Amino acid sequence: MEFQTIRHDLNDGILTITLNRPEQLNAFTVTMAEELEHSFRAVNDKDSVRAVIVTGADRAFCAGMDLSRKGNVFGLDEELTPGLGDMADLDDPAIAAVRDTGGRCTLAIHDCRKPIIAAINGAAVGIGATMTLAMDRRLMSASARIGLVFGRIGIVPEACSTWYLPRLVGPSAALDLVLRADILDAEAALAVGLVDEVHPGEDLMTQAVAVADSWTRGRSPVAVALSRQMVRRNGTLAHPSEAHRIDSLAMFWTSVGDGKEGVAAFLEKRKPDFQGRASTMPDFYNDWVTGPGSHSAPVR
Amino acid sequence: MEFQTIRHDLNDGILTITLNRPEQLNAFTVTMAEELEHSFRAVNDKDSVRAVIVTGADRAFCAGMDLSRKGNVFGLDEELTPGLGDMADLDDPAIAAVRDTGGRCTLAIHDCRKPIIAAINGAAVGIGATMTLAMDRRLMSASARIGLVFGRIGIVPEACSTWYLPRLVGPSAALDLVLRADILDAEAALAVGLVDEVHPGEDLMTQAVAVADSWTRGRSPVAVALSRQMVRRNGTLAHPSEAHRIDSLAMFWTSVGDGKEGVAAFLEKRKPDFQGRASTMPDFYNDWVTGPGSHSAPVR
Amino acid sequence: MEFQTIRHDLNDGILTITLNRPEQLNAFTVTMAEELEHSFRAVNDKDSVRAVIVTGADRAFCAGMDLSRKGNVFGLDEELTPGLGDMADLDDPAIAAVRDTGGRCTLAIHDCRKPIIAAINGAAVGIGATMTLAMDRRLMSASARIGLVFGRIGIVPEACSTWYLPRLVGPSAALDLVLRADILDAEAALAVGLVDEVHPGEDLMTQAVAVADSWTRGRSPVAVALSRQMVRRNGTLAHPSEAHRIDSLAMFWTSVGDGKEGVAAFLEKRKPDFQGRASTMPDFYNDWVTGPGSHSAPVR
Repeated sequence: MEFQTIRHDLNDGILTITLNRPEQLNAFTVTMAEELEHSFRAVNDKDSVRAVIVTGADRAFCAGMDLSRKGNVFGLDEELTPGLGDMADLDDPAIAAVRDTGGRCTLAIHDCRKPIIAAINGAAVGIGATMTLAMDRRLMSASARIGLVFGRIGIVPEACSTWYLPRLVGPSAALDLVLRADILDAEAALAVGLVDEVHPGEDLMTQAVAVADSWTRGRSPVAVALSRQMVRRNGTLAHPSEAHRIDSLAMFWTSVGDGKEGVAAFLEKRKPDFQGRASTMPDFYNDWVTGPGSHSAPVR
Repeated sequence: MEFQTIRHDLNDGILTITLNRPEQLNAFTVTMAEELEHSFRAVNDKDSVRAVIVTGADRAFCAGMDLSRKGNVFGLDEELTPGLGDMADLDDPAIAAVRDTGGRCTLAIHDCRKPIIAAINGAAVGIGATMTLAMDRRLMSASARIGLVFGRIGIVPEACSTWYLPRLVGPSAALDLVLRADILDAEAALAVGLVDEVHPGEDLMTQAVAVADSWTRGRSPVAVALSRQMVRRNGTLAHPSEAHRIDSLAMFWTSVGDGKEGVAAFLEKRKPDFQGRASTMPDFYNDWVTGPGSHSAPVR
Repeated sequence: MEFQTIRHDLNDGILTITLNRPEQLNAFTVTMAEELEHSFRAVNDKDSVRAVIVTGADRAFCAGMDLSRKGNVFGLDEELTPGLGDMADLDDPAIAAVRDTGGRCTLAIHDCRKPIIAAINGAAVGIGATMTLAMDRRLMSASARIGLVFGRIGIVPEACSTWYLPRLVGPSAALDLVLRADILDAEAALAVGLVDEVHPGEDLMTQAVAVADSWTRGRSPVAVALSRQMVRRNGTLAHPSEAHRIDSLAMFWTSVGDGKEGVAAFLEKRKPDFQGRASTMPDFYNDWVTGPGSHSAPVR
């Protein structure tokens, strides 16, 4: 796939995706949404990729939705209203055109088999902020700024951000961030929990790579993919018995796979040589993460 | 509606509800529950109200359930036991009499279209503490005290407080607060996350008004109502795809409504003039917030 | 029941369960899992027990799964794979053999009627760490260490730990702890929220007893059991109306039981003399905590 709005760079197992419309401060478009969604889904099958870093070209991370086309600012068509109903079936092609484009990206991030790290190098506003909430860790340049500014223009936060935000910062701070709709500097963003780490701009990518390495270098990519989904999914369930079901299946699967090598290496005091591949996950994983009802398959 | 136990004051779009039984330290009664539930539901239709502040008359915020009528301390009738079953249908009139009165208030707070700010001016004990957990932000006078004292008298926390408390302070602190059943001063309450801000008593109302203004002045009341429910509801779901469904509907709705004016004003570098009204929400909002299964409609 | 791997000591209403394989650093075995699960379920019927403390004999708390039997490290049989399916029915005897043993313990902890306090006296690794996440409070010796090291040997965290961990430390820190798979000292564990309190080793048991007393001495064991489950369960539901249903039933039940004595004692300014027993809980409690779909009944 040729990309118009993003760039891919693969180096030593780490795929860096760069939002790449620098003259528009990397503003988000429908094409960028499609290229990002595609990237986060396609990476599942690429065993050469251990982890993903997302950053922006030049000064900005992403200045939000490109509002320069005034007539149809969110890619939505007013004529569609009558047929919308309650949008019960997200996979219905008639619904596809009004599906929030940011959410299509973050659902692909959510279901990904690889850890995804945001390296927020500059301004992250609107969808530029909300897309990072679905990622696994947010590193921010000390000179960058971030804001959920939707309320200032009479709209609502999107990209599933209200699913992630209360979990990340607590419900009180979440509503305060959404309703104030302020742009925060890095210190304020760190204090409230909107980002996890702040670094000088020149160190940002090095630090992002360090996180990716600490999570994935020399590890079983199958165990990484399973663990990532277990943390994302098990913590949201009403009762731990459902987590227990997944734990049992995942522990069984890994204990007859990479875990066998892991324990042998541990007992023999050597480094493990894991053979598992994230491109080939067990059936229960596929049913769990992308099965019926996940609403997360790409529509186009 | 004439109120016996509370007072309404509307000033510049902010409705202040004052718990008003000062000689009983604003102790909670069935009448107060009914007047509060009515207030939080009726405000949805009042487009003159941007936000709500709840405070107490004179020294106390609310000293808890009025225990002075010994025979029937919680308004419950022991004879009702046999017919209770498992209380599956909260809308069944036979169940109405044993529904926790505090919970009827907090469910109305939960489903409200306006942000609700607690200005805890003095002692907040029992239901005086738990009712504030359902509000959107808790501001506390430096000289006030707050406590979930239920365990000291052999009963359990109510008003849906165990739904809110673990989300606000984490599960470890939540159980510790409930089982210790201590009364905390403002410093301790802030440290554990039971309240969001502490101010000198004389500044409390000014600060509460400042929060209400920062959230609602010059904003679209439709976007405020949608955002408030999105933060409350989307963050509780098992998978973000359900948030995506609501995001798409809410973004579509606002982008053909107040968002159109918001973007135009942004591009024209002027203040927006939003026309939306929270009294008229889209069908999907009503289905989502007050539809079948919400159990939150008033019973009487 | 005679125990091979743990020890029971009951003193003034507090049951101390000591993991007792000191020569193996209290490493976890299938027998230990069965003895712990049995203990956490049997204590529900023992009205002489107010609270439970779990600690380790000698230097360690629990060094994780005993890996010394190389052939079958997790007690799992590779031959079982074909029949596993998606493990929908955890109560199916054919599934029992592959159910994660750690999870069988933590589900019993989850559903317990008594508060359970971890006194982490020394190294807590693997299941030694994850089993404590299901307990109600974690106290740690200043010289102890704790780690979710699963990722280092190519396996996944278990014992429902991914259900508890994001709630305790937030989703970002949860994934970071799981993927880094580091062993943390007490200071780091406290900073991230993995434990609640750190004490000098010689004070650890005294402090654990102090927590147990502050939660249960002189309190209604029925209100304690109800409150514990309300905090665990109500906080996980999508909408507070379900909490309201339980609140109403629990408040009704206690207000015609120990609450009647509690209010009388309060009004008469004397200590209450509660008569309720946690061995006899109301029908709605049993349906709620151990009813169909709880998957938490012991399998063997």
